[in-house]
Amino acid sequence: MDYIDRAEATRRILAAKERAGLSFEELAQVVGAHEVWVASALLGQNTMSSEQAAAAGKALALDEATVAALSRDAARGSLPAAVPTDPLIYRFHEIVQVYGTTLKAVIEEKFGSGIMSAIDFSMDIDRVDDPRGDRVKVTLNGKFLPYRTW
Amino acid sequence: MDYIDRAEATRRILAAKERAGLSFEELAQVVGAHEVWVASALLGQNTMSSEQAAAAGKALALDEATVAALSRDAARGSLPAAVPTDPLIYRFHEIVQVYGTTLKAVIEEKFGSGIMSAIDFSMDIDRVDDPRGDRVKVTLNGKFLPYRTW
Amino acid sequence: MDYIDRAEATRRILAAKERAGLSFEELAQVVGAHEVWVASALLGQNTMSSEQAAAAGKALALDEATVAALSRDAARGSLPAAVPTDPLIYRFHEIVQVYGTTLKAVIEEKFGSGIMSAIDFSMDIDRVDDPRGDRVKVTLNGKFLPYRTW
Amino acid sequence: MDYIDRAEATRRILAAKERAGLSFEELAQVVGAHEVWVASALLGQNTMSSEQAAAAGKALALDEATVAALSRDAARGSLPAAVPTDPLIYRFHEIVQVYGTTLKAVIEEKFGSGIMSAIDFSMDIDRVDDPRGDRVKVTLNGKFLPYRTW
Amino acid sequence: MDYIDRAEATRRILAAKERAGLSFEELAQVVGAHEVWVASALLGQNTMSSEQAAAAGKALALDEATVAALSRDAARGSLPAAVPTDPLIYRFHEIVQVYGTTLKAVIEEKFGSGIMSAIDFSMDIDRVDDPRGDRVKVTLNGKFLPYRTW
Amino acid sequence: MDYIDRAEATRRILAAKERAGLSFEELAQVVGAHEVWVASALLGQNTMSSEQAAAAGKALALDEATVAALSRDAARGSLPAAVPTDPLIYRFHEIVQVYGTTLKAVIEEKFGSGIMSAIDFSMDIDRVDDPRGDRVKVTLNGKFLPYRTW
Amino acid sequence: MDYIDRAEATRRILAAKERAGLSFEELAQVVGAHEVWVASALLGQNTMSSEQAAAAGKALALDEATVAALSRDAARGSLPAAVPTDPLIYRFHEIVQVYGTTLKAVIEEKFGSGIMSAIDFSMDIDRVDDPRGDRVKVTLNGKFLPYRTW
Amino acid sequence: MDYIDRAEATRRILAAKERAGLSFEELAQVVGAHEVWVASALLGQNTMSSEQAAAAGKALALDEATVAALSRDAARGSLPAAVPTDPLIYRFHEIVQVYGTTLKAVIEEKFGSGIMSAIDFSMDIDRVDDPRGDRVKVTLNGKFLPYRTW
Amino acid sequence: MDYIDRAEATRRILAAKERAGLSFEELAQVVGAHEVWVASALLGQNTMSSEQAAAAGKALALDEATVAALSRDAARGSLPAAVPTDPLIYRFHEIVQVYGTTLKAVIEEKFGSGIMSAIDFSMDIDRVDDPRGDRVKVTLNGKFLPYRTW
Amino acid sequence: MDYIDRAEATRRILAAKERAGLSFEELAQVVGAHEVWVASALLGQNTMSSEQAAAAGKALALDEATVAALSRDAARGSLPAAVPTDPLIYRFHEIVQVYGTTLKAVIEEKFGSGIMSAIDFSMDIDRVDDPRGDRVKVTLNGKFLPYRTW
Repeated sequence: MDYIDRAEATRRILAAKERAGLSFEELAQVVGAHEVWVASALLGQNTMSSEQAAAAGKALALDEATVAALSRDAARGSLPAAVPTDPLIYRFHEIVQVYGTTLKAVIEEKFGSGIMSAIDFSMDIDRVDDPRGDRVKVTLNGKFLPYRTW
Repeated sequence: MDYIDRAEATRRILAAKERAGLSFEELAQVVGAHEVWVASALLGQNTMSSEQAAAAGKALALDEATVAALSRDAARGSLPAAVPTDPLIYRFHEIVQVYGTTLKAVIEEKFGSGIMSAIDFSMDIDRVDDPRGDRVKVTLNGKFLPYRTW
Repeated sequence: MDYIDRAEATRRILAAKERAGLSFEELAQVVGAHEVWVASALLGQNTMSSEQAAAAGKALALDEATVAALSRDAARGSLPAAVPTDPLIYRFHEIVQVYGTTLKAVIEEKFGSGIMSAIDFSMDIDRVDDPRGDRVKVTLNGKFLPYRTW
Repeated sequence: MDYIDRAEATRRILAAKERAGLSFEELAQVVGAHEVWVASALLGQNTMSSEQAAAAGKALALDEATVAALSRDAARGSLPAAVPTDPLIYRFHEIVQVYGTTLKAVIEEKFGSGIMSAIDFSMDIDRVDDPRGDRVKVTLNGKFLPYRTW
Repeated sequence: MDYIDRAEATRRILAAKERAGLSFEELAQVVGAHEVWVASALLGQNTMSSEQAAAAGKALALDEATVAALSRDAARGSLPAAVPTDPLIYRFHEIVQVYGTTLKAVIEEKFGSGIMSAIDFSMDIDRVDDPRGDRVKVTLNGKFLPYRTW
Repeated sequence: MDYIDRAEATRRILAAKERAGLSFEELAQVVGAHEVWVASALLGQNTMSSEQAAAAGKALALDEATVAALSRDAARGSLPAAVPTDPLIYRFHEIVQVYGTTLKAVIEEKFGSGIMSAIDFSMDIDRVDDPRGDRVKVTLNGKFLPYRTW
Repeated sequence: MDYIDRAEATRRILAAKERAGLSFEELAQVVGAHEVWVASALLGQNTMSSEQAAAAGKALALDEATVAALSRDAARGSLPAAVPTDPLIYRFHEIVQVYGTTLKAVIEEKFGSGIMSAIDFSMDIDRVDDPRGDRVKVTLNGKFLPYRTW
Repeated sequence: MDYIDRAEATRRILAAKERAGLSFEELAQVVGAHEVWVASALLGQNTMSSEQAAAAGKALALDEATVAALSRDAARGSLPAAVPTDPLIYRFHEIVQVYGTTLKAVIEEKFGSGIMSAIDFSMDIDRVDDPRGDRVKVTLNGKFLPYRTW
Repeated sequence: MDYIDRAEATRRILAAKERAGLSFEELAQVVGAHEVWVASALLGQNTMSSEQAAAAGKALALDEATVAALSRDAARGSLPAAVPTDPLIYRFHEIVQVYGTTLKAVIEEKFGSGIMSAIDFSMDIDRVDDPRGDRVKVTLNGKFLPYRTW
Repeated sequence: MDYIDRAEATRRILAAKERAGLSFEELAQVVGAHEVWVASALLGQNTMSSEQAAAAGKALALDEATVAALSRDAARGSLPAAVPTDPLIYRFHEIVQVYGTTLKAVIEEKFGSGIMSAIDFSMDIDRVDDPRGDRVKVTLNGKFLPYRTW
C-alpha cells in the first residue's frame, strides 16, 4: 500500500467528490457525523475513525492510501498564510481583527478569566431565509475553560 | 472642547466603566442596542449615533471629547498584530486557520459563489449551561452576498 | 476525466489564449459577459457558469478538465505576496497605501458609516485618448453597504 | 513659529475640521481643487501650494505651523501596515489581490507593455443612486507610461 | 483613583519588587499561591483575586491603581515579537521549533487526537543540583483535551 | 547507494512506521534510548549513531539511504513557520509567549544571570491519570549555563 | 509549440548563454539595444519585440517556446524576497535604506513635488579605471514626473 | 550640554533648514562637501567632522547638542520599513527588485566575482533638461571589491 | 531612588560617556574586565556585579538609578529588527546568511553533533595593521556543547 | 553537457562527499585553498577557478555539469530565512542580535566611521583544547573600509 500525506489525500478527495457529485450533507449521512465536521475531516483538519474513513472511502471510491490518511493526525492549519486572501475566508479573519477585543471583553465579563475551547468545540453553518437576502449563520460552540491558579 | 482619537477614547471608557462598575449588559440597556454591539462600539470598533453616545456618556460620566469620539468613524481593527497572542482571541484565529477551507467549502455548497458579509452582520455571545462544563456559544449572522457577473 | 486545480487551469488557459491569438475582448463576446470579468474568470478569480465555461473552452480549444475547473470556486487571491513587485500591479497597491485614508474619509462623509462592496462589484478598464499621452481609466463600482446596529 | 511634521498636522486638521463642521466638498471650494485631492492633501498625502494652504488654514482656523506643514512634501503612505485592517480600506486591498493579474493582463492587452501612472493621476469618488442600494463609484485615471527600450 | 493598564502596572511592580528586595518565592508565600503563578500574575499574564492583589500590594507597597490592575484581565502575551531575541527565552522557542513535531507525534501516540491545554495548566521551575553543573527543570502540566467529533 | 536528505528520510520513516505498526516506545527499546529522543531523531531533529540507525532501520525495514541519513546532521527546525498553526504545537508556542518573561524572571532569580541549555537537554512526555481528565506532563531538563564575564 | 513561462525561459537562456560563451555585450550587438536592457530582457524583466527575440534566439540557439516567451509580458520582480541576501544586490538595497530620505529630499528640492520614473527609465553600468581600485559606475536616468493637482 | 540622539537632531535640523530657507546646495558650500553627502549627513546617515558640523550649525543656527550629534556615528538606515511606501523612494526599491539580477549579471561579467562598495561610494543627483520632460540622473559610484580566496 | 529600565540606562550611559570623553578601553581598566564585555554591559546586553557597576558609575558620573540598572538582567537583544539596516552591523548578518551552512558543516566535521555556545563565550575585537589597509579581526570563542542522547 | 544551478550542484556535492568519505580538510589540500573557503565554495557560496573546480571534481568524482557550476557566480545566501532555526547557526545570529551594537561601538571607537568588509574577508574555524570542555574559535578577518566624504 502506498503512503500519502494528508495534503495529497485532500487533493484526491476533492477530485473524487466532484466526480461522485456528492455534497457534504450526503457524505455526512454516509459517515454518520455532522456535515461541518465531515467536511473539515475530508479537508484534512480532523481525524476520522477507521470506520468513518472506510465509509467515506466507499462513497467516494477512494484508493486505500487515501482512506488510511483520513484516520491519521496531520499538521492542522488549512491556509497558506496568517492573513487569508480569499474574500470568503478573509471576512472571518476580519471579524477576529475587528471584534477580537469585544469577544474578549464580553466573554470575560460573562464567564470570568478563561477562554472558549477550540478543541472541545463544534460549529454549525446554516442558511437562514430572509426576504431581504438570505443569511449565513455560523454558530461556534466551545467549552469554557477557566484559567486556574496553582 | 478637546479632540481625542478613538484609541484614547477607548482608554478613558475602560477606566470609566471600571469606576462605574457597570456591565456591558447594563450599558446595552442604557444605549438601547445589543450588548455585543455596544461593547464593540465602546471599544472603538463601531460608530454610535449621537443619541447613543450621549446615553453612554451619561451612564459612564464621560467627558465631552470622549462622547464626541464615540460617533466618529475610526480606523477599525482592534488588535496589534495579524496573529493575536492573547489565548482567548487566538482561539478564534485558530478556528479561521483550521476551519477556513471548511467554511468556504460548506458555504459555497449551500449558497453558491459568494461570501458572508462582515458588515451586514451581527454577533451573539451566549452562555450555555452544561453539567460537564458551561459552554460559550458565539453566533455569527451575516447576509450572504453572491458574486455577480458583469 | 482528469481533475486539475484552478492554478493549473490558468496556466493552460494562458497557453491556449496565446496559441489561439484571441483577445479578452473577443473572448468576452464569445462568453457573453464583460471583458474584465471574463479576464478575471479565465485567470482563476471568478467562477463561470457551465455554459460560459463551455463557450470559453470551445473558443480556446481547452481540454475537458480545464473547462470543468472554470466553474469551480477556488481560493481567490491572484498574487504571491501582500506587496506586489510587478510595477503595473504595484501602482494600484500604492494607490491604496497613499489614498487609503482619503478613500475612507470621503466615502464615509458621502455615505455614512459603511464600505464599498468588493463582491457586489464591477470594474471597467478603458483607454482614454489624450494628445499628451493616452490614459488608463479604471472604474470601480461597488454597492455601498452600511454598518448596521444590532 | 513652531515646526510640526505632517502627521501632527493631520491630527490638528482633523480636529479643526470636526470643530468647524466643514465637509471636504466645502473645503474643496475654498481651496479651489477637487474634493478628493483636497482630502488627500489635508490627510498629509499631497502637497498644497502656499495659496491653497493659506485658504485651507483660514477656513479651518489652523495655526501657522499647520499651514506651513501643508505645503511641505512628506513621506507618503497613509496606512500603518501593508495589509490594512480597516474593512473599508481592506476592500480596495482585496481588489488589488484578487484583480491584480486581471488589471495587468487587460491593460497590457489594450496598451502594450507599460503601467498606469499613480503620479500623473486623479481619482473621483461618486455616489450613484440605485433603487437596489446606492453604489460607490471610484474612478482612477492615470497616464499610460510605456516601457522604453534603450 | 487613577486607572493604569497592566503594562504600566508591571513596570511599577518590578520597581517595587527591586526596592522591597523580595523574591518571587517570598511573594508566593504572601499571596498564597505557587511561585511561578505569582510571578506570571505580577508580570501581567494572570489575574489575581482581589484578596491576592491586596496581599501583594501590601507586601510591595503598591499604589491603589496598581493593585486594581492586578485583578483585571489583560491582553496576554509577554513578548514583543513572535521570535524572542533574549537568549534565555529563545531557548524555549527553539525547543518548540526543534521538538514541535516530536511533541505532536508522541502526545498523539500516547493520548490520541487532541492537545495539552495551556489554560488548565500549571508550570514548575526547579533547580536540580548536579556535580557536573546544576540543571533547570521546567515541568509543564496541562489537561489533555481530546478532539471531539460532532 | 542513493543519497537522500533528512526531510525525505522522515517521509519514508513515517510511512514505514505506519506500515510496521510500531510505536515510538517500541522503537525506543529497539534503539536503546529514550522514547522522546528516538522520536525526535526519527523526525529528523537529532542524529543517531550508526548502530542506533541500523537498529531502527532493521525494525522499520528501511532502505539503506534512509538509514544513512539518520546519522547525518541536518538543518534542525521541524516547523514551517515561526508561529505554528497546528493547535497541539501552538499551545507550546503560546506558553512561551505568555510565560516567557516569567521563565526569565524566575530562572534568573533562582540561578543568576544565564540560560537553560537546549543542547545539554532532555525531555520527558508522560501521561498522568486524573479522574477529572488525564493530564500531559512535559518535563524539560537542561543544564544551567551562567553568563561569563571576560 | 510548447508554452513555457518566463521563469523557465530565463533558466534555458542562462544555460544557452553559458554554452554559447557569449557576453551580454555581444548579445546587445546582436539584438540592437543597450547591453543592460538586453540583459534585463534575457533575465525576464523586460519585453522584447519579436524581431529582437528572434535575433537573440538565433544567437543563443534557443528553442521556439523560449523565443516566444521573450516577447511576452511577465510578472516583473527578479528577487525572491524584499531584502536580498546576495551581497552584490544587497548593497543596492542598502543604498536605498541609507540614502532613501536623501534621494527624496534632494530630488524634491531640485524638481519640486514628484518622482523619478522607473518606467521611462534607463540604466548604464560602467567600469571606471582607477589606480586605487577600479570602480563600478551605475547611472539611473528616469523622467521626472511631477505630482498633479486635480 | 544636553545630549540628543541623531533622530532628534534630524528633526531639529529639518525645522532649522525650513526656517533658514537654505537649500542643500547652499549648505554644501558652507560645509565644503558635495550636496548629496551634506544632505545625507544632515539627515543622520553620514558623520561630519567637527569643523563641518560647526559650519552647518552656524549656518542653520543649531543648538550645541544638535551640532554635537552631527559628528557622532549613529545607527544608519533612514526608512521605517524594508519596503518603502513613499512613491519617490519606492521607485528606487523597485529598480532593485526588477533590475537586481541584471545588476549582478552585468557587473560580474564586467568585473568578475565581487561587489560594488556602498561604503567607498559616492552619489550624484542631477537634473537633465529635456524638451520631452526633464530627467533625474542619479549616478552611483562605488569601488569594485573582488571576492578573495583564502 | 528612581527606577529606570536598561534601555533608559543605556541612553544615559552613552550621553555620560560622550561627556566624560572616556573610551571603552579606559572604562575596561576601571571596571576590571575585557573592553568588549564592558562595552556590551554598558550597552545593556550583559550584567555587571555591583562592584563593577559602582566603578563604572563613578568613572562616568552616573546617577544611582543608572548604576542600579547595570546589575539587573534585562531582555537581551540590541537591535530593532532581525535584519539590521546599519551597514557595519549588517555585514555580520551577511556573514551568517552567506557562511551559515559553512559554519555548520565545518564545526560538525571537527567536533561532531553540537553547537558553539553563545553564553560560555567571549569576543575580541582587534585592529591588525596592514599596509594594504588595516583589518578588523573579530574572534569568537565559545565552548563546544555536544548534543546528548537521552 | 547538462546545465544545473548551484543549489542542485550543492546537493550532488554533498552526496559525493559522503560517498567519498573525504573531509573538508582533505578537500582543501586537493583544491589548494583554506578549508573554510573550500567548504563555502562547495556549499555554493564562493566561486572556484576552473582549476580548483576540476581538482574538486576529480577528488569527488563529480559529473561535468557540477564541476561547471562550481566556477559560476550564484545568488549567495545559504539560509532559507533571515532568522535561522538550526541551533548551531542560530547562535551566530544571536551573537549579532545581542552584540550588534557592541561591535558597532567598539569598531567605530578603534577605527573611526566605517565597516569591516565581508568581501575582502577570511574566516578561520579552529578547535581549542580545554580541560573544562573544548572550545570553538571562529576568527573573522575583514578589511576596514572607512566611509568617505565626497
